[in-house]
Amino acid sequence: MVTRVNGIAASDGVGIAPAYLLTKPNLSFEKYHVSDAASEKKRLHNAFDKIIRNLETTKKNLTGKLSDEDLAIFDTHIAILNDPEMIRQVENRITNQRLNAESAFAEVITKAIKTLQAMTGNEYMQERAADFQNIQDQVLAELEGKELPNLRALDHPVIVVAHSIGPSDTSQMDARFVKGIITDLGGRTSHAAIMARSLQIPAIVGCNDITRKAVNGQNVIVDGFEGNAIIEPASTEISQYQKIADKFMNVRQQWQQMVDKPSVTADGSKYKIAANIGSSVDISSAMENGADGVGLFRTEFLYMKSDHLPTEDEQFNAYRKAVEQLKGKRLVVRTLDIGGDKPLRFMPLPKEMNPFLGYRAIRIALDRPEMFRTQLRALLRASEFGKISIMFPMITTLEELQAAKKIYYEEQQKLAVDHPEIGKDVRLGMMIEVPLAALNAERLAAEVDFFSIGTNDLIQYCFAADRGNDSVSYLYQPLNPTFLKLVKHIIDSGHAHNTTVAMCGEMAGDRYSLPLLIGMGLDVYSMSASSILRTRSMMRQLDRKKCQELYQEAITTCDSMPAVKNLVQHWLVEN
Amino acid sequence: MVTRVNGIAASDGVGIAPAYLLTKPNLSFEKYHVSDAASEKKRLHNAFDKIIRNLETTKKNLTGKLSDEDLAIFDTHIAILNDPEMIRQVENRITNQRLNAESAFAEVITKAIKTLQAMTGNEYMQERAADFQNIQDQVLAELEGKELPNLRALDHPVIVVAHSIGPSDTSQMDARFVKGIITDLGGRTSHAAIMARSLQIPAIVGCNDITRKAVNGQNVIVDGFEGNAIIEPASTEISQYQKIADKFMNVRQQWQQMVDKPSVTADGSKYKIAANIGSSVDISSAMENGADGVGLFRTEFLYMKSDHLPTEDEQFNAYRKAVEQLKGKRLVVRTLDIGGDKPLRFMPLPKEMNPFLGYRAIRIALDRPEMFRTQLRALLRASEFGKISIMFPMITTLEELQAAKKIYYEEQQKLAVDHPEIGKDVRLGMMIEVPLAALNAERLAAEVDFFSIGTNDLIQYCFAADRGNDSVSYLYQPLNPTFLKLVKHIIDSGHAHNTTVAMCGEMAGDRYSLPLLIGMGLDVYSMSASSILRTRSMMRQLDRKKCQELYQEAITTCDSMPAVKNLVQHWLVEN
Repeated sequence: MVTRVNGIAASDGVGIAPAYLLTKPNLSFEKYHVSDAASEKKRLHNAFDKIIRNLETTKKNLTGKLSDEDLAIFDTHIAILNDPEMIRQVENRITNQRLNAESAFAEVITKAIKTLQAMTGNEYMQERAADFQNIQDQVLAELEGKELPNLRALDHPVIVVAHSIGPSDTSQMDARFVKGIITDLGGRTSHAAIMARSLQIPAIVGCNDITRKAVNGQNVIVDGFEGNAIIEPASTEISQYQKIADKFMNVRQQWQQMVDKPSVTADGSKYKIAANIGSSVDISSAMENGADGVGLFRTEFLYMKSDHLPTEDEQFNAYRKAVEQLKGKRLVVRTLDIGGDKPLRFMPLPKEMNPFLGYRAIRIALDRPEMFRTQLRALLRASEFGKISIMFPMITTLEELQAAKKIYYEEQQKLAVDHPEIGKDVRLGMMIEVPLAALNAERLAAEVDFFSIGTNDLIQYCFAADRGNDSVSYLYQPLNPTFLKLVKHIIDSGHAHNTTVAMCGEMAGDRYSLPLLIGMGLDVYSMSASSILRTRSMMRQLDRKKCQELYQEAITTCDSMPAVKNLVQHWLVEN
Repeated sequence: MVTRVNGIAASDGVGIAPAYLLTKPNLSFEKYHVSDAASEKKRLHNAFDKIIRNLETTKKNLTGKLSDEDLAIFDTHIAILNDPEMIRQVENRITNQRLNAESAFAEVITKAIKTLQAMTGNEYMQERAADFQNIQDQVLAELEGKELPNLRALDHPVIVVAHSIGPSDTSQMDARFVKGIITDLGGRTSHAAIMARSLQIPAIVGCNDITRKAVNGQNVIVDGFEGNAIIEPASTEISQYQKIADKFMNVRQQWQQMVDKPSVTADGSKYKIAANIGSSVDISSAMENGADGVGLFRTEFLYMKSDHLPTEDEQFNAYRKAVEQLKGKRLVVRTLDIGGDKPLRFMPLPKEMNPFLGYRAIRIALDRPEMFRTQLRALLRASEFGKISIMFPMITTLEELQAAKKIYYEEQQKLAVDHPEIGKDVRLGMMIEVPLAALNAERLAAEVDFFSIGTNDLIQYCFAADRGNDSVSYLYQPLNPTFLKLVKHIIDSGHAHNTTVAMCGEMAGDRYSLPLLIGMGLDVYSMSASSILRTRSMMRQLDRKKCQELYQEAITTCDSMPAVKNLVQHWLVEN
């Protein structure tokens, strides 16, 4: 019988193959008392050590294949296993209560998982809960001498069906055999989704109970474009979807030919398609995907993985290395964007009731300028080795922008004593991600060389909807006509002052947004490296004038996001 | 020696009198073990009971003198003392550890205070910490047989100087003797500040260490307009400030004459000045202050103090009572505005990472419409007894507004079977407090009879700054020229569709904003009852045309909030 399941489209493509359920062995255990606490603790640490070694090996094997952001998940898992507070609590239970390692460990980690799961509306916390769950399984399996499902043993094509997928699962996935992924849990930013896009495996997440509906070996179709899964499809459906899959394979191959092509529309209008990256390691992937530069270089990685404030030289080396790898292309660096939800080990920040509306990014930089000055000096010095742009995050008022610029010029003047030319090629810009800045774009444009519209945050604030909160995810509406008009206002305001306008949120890489953004006149499109070639391919088929007409039609005839999406869908078919 | 202290101006007026330090007696105690746990628990409960009785008596005595919102503080304190979990924890310590009542109680409440205090950037949590601290003092004093400072015993004018001020303090304050209040802690929305404004006592809060600087009996000047305190002022300064104080006394008396005057500018343009109220009890205060109606009737009180979903009849009775008291003036009711930070006892809501960007207000109403339908039916029925307007909070998109209206008309149609005329005088409106709605005001205006601009939230979202977070309080900028232009856009959009435009945030009652808002054409000014007469008095001296010119000058010549404020200050002196 045909069963149809709908979830969240997480990674493009179509996959057809038998289901392979990633079901766990029974990991339940007896709770008992041990006489020799020391040897029980040894058993615990042996298990931890073995898992940590496995994680390190897998991470090493995948370095270069996965982005730095993806690889960081292994560090997260290793960090959980190395957490001294967790270890202390487990050891206490073994020493004081004479509990066996399984019980002691499970008690501690279950408590952590429950706390995280209680935050039901919060996607980020749900992801963390999944991390802890995954670690729990690995440790229990290791302690009990059981095997977790082993994707490494696969030798034929399958669709992986799982409750959720952790990095240890994906690390074992071989894209030759894994033709699709379907999970019960997760959103578009879950590990499963991120990994699937990196590995170019079609995926659907958030299907609720696919693991209860599918049986091992049943034929399954995964439609990662629309988020549909079909269990035991009719043969006519299989051949329909096979055609889509084949066509998409061809399309992907065509995209590969875009690596050296210029980013132009069919009429010859020139744009730039750049990459958003999380660290300098990601630059190779950006270059392989033909990026015209880096439109967003997040600098948090330098701070978040460090136990001290990174020194000027440490930062200078990182920025210099990054810009040199770009071989003359431009590196747009965002100054430190941290806050209550992204804490630093060496700088305690207050717990806030609404961290997204709190003390963060440029607000901290202006309030505690020493850290900001160090970063600006490092960037200025690195600018002698390539084209560097500096971008300030979370600018709200004109005064903040002017204060940030003042600090920048003070540092530049100091360095200019010995290096008179320093900073002369640096371009200064700001993120437009706070509604007030968007509204004041015309005045702000006079102050900077470029804007970069951070659509994720700008949408979050315009719609007053936390982008990590599932309960209000229906308010993530990049195609809302009112929002489109605001983006147009930002672009027009920039152009009135010869200020380049870029975009570095999710929207820049979205296929429905692209014709509208071209119609609005956006200059630079910055996105994850894996989206660049698809976007360039699409861009080269679009006509600027027609895109302008499309935008006009959207804002004059559409009242809502679904209306705009519908319009663009039809327009894409006709054009 | 003259000492000058600067804090946050919390309540208008000037007070000059000797300092009266609200310093606590030494409440430290021995920790010892008791043999008779039962009698120790009895001692604890006797203390609790006595304090609860005192709180209840004081609340009763103040009912009618304080607003419902202010009186609710007593319920908060009583609720802390009645909290079964707290009592359980204290009793456990007495029973199991044989602790004396002082130690057992202090251990439990200190833990709660520390948890709250750790949330340093969060004003709300700091206020809650102050509540717990206050309760701790009362219980320890009662157990130790000590007296806390007794404001009731005052028989001469004083300036009260305190670390913080709780409801039990203010409840004892007699405005004949308390000529001013200065505190170390607190913000403009702290209890001390709210109480001081209600009681019309000049006040400065957030002075950090005034309690260490002032000595009992020293002469002190409190300047509640500017937030300055002067300890041991020169006699010339005293006479200067005495003149200001006298003048302000006169002014206040003149305001009283405004009760029956129409809300018009000097040129005869007509407006409405309405009251924001938290429950029907506040209506008498609104009427005494000459309100032209109620511009914001918060309905949360019906739900938050209840242990069940209020029934349709319970709500109907409350709304009918309220509208009847208004004697033909209009009552604008905001439908339920709850969320993660304002939980209901009978409806668990998910914990959210950013509740101000979460599942709240109309988002909940549309997602769980039964509660919303009940409220709408109660309002429709009450509308047969007076003029009722219904206002939807947190509307973001056009679809949400249309969905809310659809539900309203469905309920109206059902009731119309028996009451054909029902709802014919009801006016439907929406809050404009989400940036996207502000931007889309022109389209939304076609759908409603009125807008009400909620400036507190609109500013919070436009500036991406939690209004309860001290670290980003510098971004509360109602006079920012970009924000002013947005308000003007909302007003113009409303007027283009004959939609009345009201404002019900703090800004509506602000003396610097008033001429600008008149210049922009705002129709209805809704504010706390105590601000109405002052505002009407000022309004009657303003000229609409000059206000329009002022607004134009502000947005064309000013780049920042300080520039606008400066412009208005000078303009007010000249006009």
